[in-house]
This record gives sequence, C-alpha cells and structure tokens, in this order.
Amino acid sequence: MTNFDLYIPTRIYFGRDEEQKVGELVKATGSKKVLLHYGSQSIKKSGLYAKVVSSLKAAGVDFVELGGVVPNPRLSLAQEGIALAKKEGVDFILAVGGGSAIDSAKAIAIGFYYEGDVWEVYEQKKPITKALPVATVLTIPAAGSESSESTVISNEEKQMKLGYSSNLVRPVFSIMNPELFFTLPKNQIANGVADMMSHIFERYFTNTKNVDLTDALCEATLKTIIKNALIVSKDPSNYEAWCEVGFGGALAHNSLLGMGRAQDWACHGMEHELSAIYDVAHGAGLAVLTPSWMKYVYKDNVAMFLQFAVKVMGVDGSYRDPDSVILEAIGKLSAFFRAMGLPQTLTELGIEEKNFELMAKKATGVAYGREERPLGGLKKLAWQDVLSIYKLAK
Amino acid sequence: MTNFDLYIPTRIYFGRDEEQKVGELVKATGSKKVLLHYGSQSIKKSGLYAKVVSSLKAAGVDFVELGGVVPNPRLSLAQEGIALAKKEGVDFILAVGGGSAIDSAKAIAIGFYYEGDVWEVYEQKKPITKALPVATVLTIPAAGSESSESTVISNEEKQMKLGYSSNLVRPVFSIMNPELFFTLPKNQIANGVADMMSHIFERYFTNTKNVDLTDALCEATLKTIIKNALIVSKDPSNYEAWCEVGFGGALAHNSLLGMGRAQDWACHGMEHELSAIYDVAHGAGLAVLTPSWMKYVYKDNVAMFLQFAVKVMGVDGSYRDPDSVILEAIGKLSAFFRAMGLPQTLTELGIEEKNFELMAKKATGVAYGREERPLGGLKKLAWQDVLSIYKLAK
Repeated sequence: MTNFDLYIPTRIYFGRDEEQKVGELVKATGSKKVLLHYGSQSIKKSGLYAKVVSSLKAAGVDFVELGGVVPNPRLSLAQEGIALAKKEGVDFILAVGGGSAIDSAKAIAIGFYYEGDVWEVYEQKKPITKALPVATVLTIPAAGSESSESTVISNEEKQMKLGYSSNLVRPVFSIMNPELFFTLPKNQIANGVADMMSHIFERYFTNTKNVDLTDALCEATLKTIIKNALIVSKDPSNYEAWCEVGFGGALAHNSLLGMGRAQDWACHGMEHELSAIYDVAHGAGLAVLTPSWMKYVYKDNVAMFLQFAVKVMGVDGSYRDPDSVILEAIGKLSAFFRAMGLPQTLTELGIEEKNFELMAKKATGVAYGREERPLGGLKKLAWQDVLSIYKLAK
Repeated sequence: MTNFDLYIPTRIYFGRDEEQKVGELVKATGSKKVLLHYGSQSIKKSGLYAKVVSSLKAAGVDFVELGGVVPNPRLSLAQEGIALAKKEGVDFILAVGGGSAIDSAKAIAIGFYYEGDVWEVYEQKKPITKALPVATVLTIPAAGSESSESTVISNEEKQMKLGYSSNLVRPVFSIMNPELFFTLPKNQIANGVADMMSHIFERYFTNTKNVDLTDALCEATLKTIIKNALIVSKDPSNYEAWCEVGFGGALAHNSLLGMGRAQDWACHGMEHELSAIYDVAHGAGLAVLTPSWMKYVYKDNVAMFLQFAVKVMGVDGSYRDPDSVILEAIGKLSAFFRAMGLPQTLTELGIEEKNFELMAKKATGVAYGREERPLGGLKKLAWQDVLSIYKLAK
C-alpha cells in the first residue's frame, strides 16, 4: 500500500425529502447571497426547482440564478457565471442537477477568485488557494461530482475537455434523494451507471500489490451497482435499488476506493477526446471504450484481471486458463452494458475512424506539439496504443 | 435503506513517516497553543514522543503536556486536562496514543467549553455546541476514535463507563503510520482487532433490508481484517498487513459502514459494564461476549446470520440447515479469537458470576431506578436477556 491522504469533508444528506432542508442548510453556512446554478428545464418540470426556491425563500436566503448548463458543461457558461457572481457579490454556489451543473458550479467557484481566465486553471493546472463554497442537490447519480474534488469543463472553441482537481472544490454538502432519479430517461440511467463504474475501474485496475481492503471495497461497490442498475433500468421508480446505485455512485468517486494504490484513468483520458469533438455522453463513451481497453491491456497484469473476472463478474472457470476466464468476464461486462441499452462500438456513437489518430494524439498531448504524456497506470499507453484501442472499439 | 447523514471530515494522513508532518499540520490550523496528551511511557520508549516534540518545535508550535492516560481512560485525568487547558489558554489538543488517549482528549475538548462538570455531558447526554479541535497520532489501531464522533470515559468513583457522540469531536486530522504498530504486544493487537471487528458487527447485524452496499462494505472490511490480523499477530512488523488492519480499523468506526441501517450496539453496552467494574480490556470483553450474543439472538434473524456465516466466515454448508451453518460460523469466529490469543469466557477475564445480575441491571439502566432501556437493535435485550448472555459466556 502506498502512503495516502484521505479527505472527504462533504456532508451527504441522503434519503426521501432531504431536499426540503436545502434552505436551512445553506442558511447555516452563513451565506449572504447564493448563485443557484442548474441545467435544463427538467428541474422545473419535475417541481424540484420550485421546491428548492421555496426552501431558500422560507429560510430567508438571498439568491440569483443561472440556468442553461448542458452535458459536457461549457466554459462559456462558466465564464458567464463568474461574471455574474462577481457582479452580484455572491458568496456561495448551489448547484441543482447532475455532474454537469456541479462541475460548472465548481468552475465558477474557482474562477471567482482566479485572476485571469478560468480556462488557464484547467489547461495549465494552475494551483488555486481559494474557491467559493459549493453545495449540491443531485438529480443524476453518475459523475460523483457531488463529493469529489474534480471538475471537468469543455472548451467548445478549442474542442478540448479538461479536468481539474482540488480539495477546495469538494462540495460542503450534497443532498441526495433517490426519488429525484425516478424520472430519468433510460439512456441517462445507463450513462450514469457506466460513468460510476468507470470511476471504480480507474482506481481498481492497478499494479500496486497488498491493497486487500480497497480491492474488496471496489469489488463490493461494483457488484452492488451492477445488480441494482439492472433493476432501476427496468423499474426506474424502485426507491431501494436507486439508493444502492446513488450511494454507490458517490462512493465511486469520493476518493476512498483509490487510497493507497496507483490509479489508471486511461479510459477517462481516451473518452474525453470523444466528447470534446463529438459531444457524446461521457458514460456512453466509457461503456464503449472500457471493454476494448481491457482486451488491450489485460496481458500486462493477468492476475489483476483474473481477480476482476472472478470477484466482480462472477466467472467460474479454470484459473489455469486465465485468458478464457478474463475474456468471458469482459464479454459479461459488455453484455451488461448492452442490457442497460448502452452502445458497444464507436460507430454506434457516430465517431468516425478518420478522427481516431487525431483523438489519440490529443489524448496524449502530441497533437499540441508537447512531449508525449502516455495515458494509464496499469499499462502506459502511447498514442499508437490509444489508436489501437479506438480501432478495437470501432 | 433509511435516510442518513454522512459526515467524515477527519483528514487521514496514512503511511510511513507521516508523523513527521505533525508540527506543520498543527501549525497550519492556526493554533497558538497545544495540549499534547498521551498515555504511558511507551511513546517515550519507542522514540515517537521525541519525534512529535521535535516536529512541533521545528514548526514553532507552542505546547503544554499532559501524560498519564490509562486504558479505560479516566474522568479524573480528563478533569485535570480541562483545568490545565483553561489555565494555559490552550486552543488545540493533540492526542498521541490509542483510543484511550484520543477519547480522553475529546473529553477535555468538550469540557473546555462546558460550564459544569464534563461528566454531566456523558451521563445526561447534554447537547454541546462547541469543542476544542482535536488531532491525533495513532499508535494502536482499535477504537477507531481517530476518525469517529465518539468518546468513552470511565468514572472510577461511580464504576461507570459511558460514551458520548458529537460531530464536534471528530478529529480534524489523524496521522496513521503502520510502522508505529510494530512494537505492540500480542494481547494489545488482539484486543484492538476484536474492538474494530465489533464496531463493524454492531453496524452489520440489522433488521433493515435493502442495504446491499453497506452489507458488502462491512463484509469486505471484516474479511480483510480477519485475514490480516492473523498475519500481524504472528509477524508484528509486517507493514503491509498492518496497513490493511489499520485502515480497516478507521473505516470500521468512521460511520460509513452503518449508513442507512439500524444498528445494534448491544455487545458494546454489555461490555462497558465489564470494564466499569473489572477494568478489563474492552476488546477482550467484546471477544468474549460477541459469540455468546450471536448464539442468543440469531434465531431472531436467521437470514442475516446465514449471510454472515457464508459471506464473512466462508462457511460452505447447506442453507436448508441454517442453524448448523450459523453455529459453525460462530465456532469459526470463536476459533479466530482464540487464535489471536483472546479469552472466550468471562471466567478467564476474572469476572465473577455474583456480579452478572448487577451488570445486567446497570447495562439496561434498571440498577439506577430508571425505566429499563433494553440494549440492541436486531433483538431488544431486557436485563434478563443480558443476564442470560453473561451466563452463556461464563
């Protein structure tokens, strides 16, 4: 086990009706003026917007609003939010939505204090020393941003999608009422599940040895998500199954499962290039790339993938033929994604082979004339490896 | 799953040499004067005391000291600490030691602001609104107090051992270097392991249904502890195995594993009465009582105990004869405790049958002329039930 620093200060209020506390919770932080940040019309249609606004008003919390967040949240809206927050003297941001609204809120929280364009923070990994406090009411379990230290923003102009991490943007609190997930369309459920599973895979697949506890926690969380995801996909108003998926999604990305072990993150790196050019759903891109990544890298750590096959996917074959056990597990994972309604080829996502090389070179930095930064931890992937994986996933 | 509120703000610095950061970490909190609180001479002998003091001095942190904490930490020392902290104008408490030093530090942190005797807080469960910040350098993985909201104090005069919980006493940070555990005597290792396992059992055994994720997390953590405890018991300088046990001990009691489910806590309640009269080691008392408690209550939730038998203890029998599967699991647990060198009868602990009834009546409050407060969650235990369990454990 490697040394680690575990810090998960986000307080999670979980369960039925918890969103009704939001006004009082914001008030208790001492905030004088809140930026209420959200996405599409869906929270207005569902009645959540009205509930949040009435809770804020009942608590006497002053707020301004900025809607319009889209999936793969855009730099331009964050910039608009930063200007608005400064003009209005906002001291707290409340994101109501999924990972996109939360990531956009985090960008505003960073940009509020950063002198210069907030994109520099993402692109040049500038250290920050201050950010506005962010809290969330979660409507889509997927990105794990509700308790994570990360934010991902898309620069439409540059066709780049970049992440940034700092404990300063971990939400101070997040409200998670699984009833709010009942109205999600089937494809959003599936994308969310693929995203949270990938957050665990990126931490699980490692060459670090002697990590029994986090191995077992990753396996426990993955199995719980897989089992309950199939239930909510067929029965989206199953509260109990949503509890497992929602709680699992937060745990998947709050840092705990990756403590003391080298992490991978190749699939996320490869996927960001898909979303940057094609604006595909992040989870769908991950569902396509993950099985191909597994096929491409597993020979570098057969024991790790055998463990995955047996302990996560429940394959019951002969360990003396590990390749067939592992390939069966990858096949089972792929079948699970299909059962969720997810694509399994880049072609289905509309991604053209002509862009594979460009995306592989962007993912590794060589497209920008920089020194190559290989992706991944378990196996280091040069741009040619990434290209091979895109081709496998074609 | 029931609604829950998950809050684990303690930052954990985990791994080799992390204790050398302590001065800088305390300084970063802005503290002006620290109370350094510890127990026996063991930290002086091991060199840890010198390391901590030199780190504090190097960072320019001013501090006063109070040593002398003993297992089942005493009210009288906490009262002394409160007086000292007030006199010296302390604004931060650094506990160096195991659960006793940390629990004592938490009592001082509470008492510093509480008007009146701090024992009232424990006995009358008085709400508190303020406490001094506490941080820890952990030397014994056991109590989980390094990231928990609880503190347990023994009132020698009244022969009472009572707990108190508040998020205000969660340490702001805890340093955990498994190398510091290498010098623990075998019985302390065993007591610590029994304590952390009990913290999980108290959360695991529940009548709440639909708690797949926390079920699986409890099982993962228990199995990891059981496997690695046997390694460190035989080879106390096995760093990797200590990492698993140490990390597992923190996870066992930081709240996560009990979220969304009714909890039990009967074994802790029954054990506190042993320690209050006989000053036995808390872990040893738990190791004795737990198998007897299981035998006494399992028929109230056979399915729960069957899951424990199969998923935690790895019993491979016929589910159509659940009693035999469960009794085999309890036997395996008992054999594990024996293998760790732990007692399995109250007689071995020197606890006399003549006090069983008094302890059972104290545990349930009837000894104090109060209305009976049955122990436990999975099965409610009246004083007669507690007496029966003491007798089973004789």
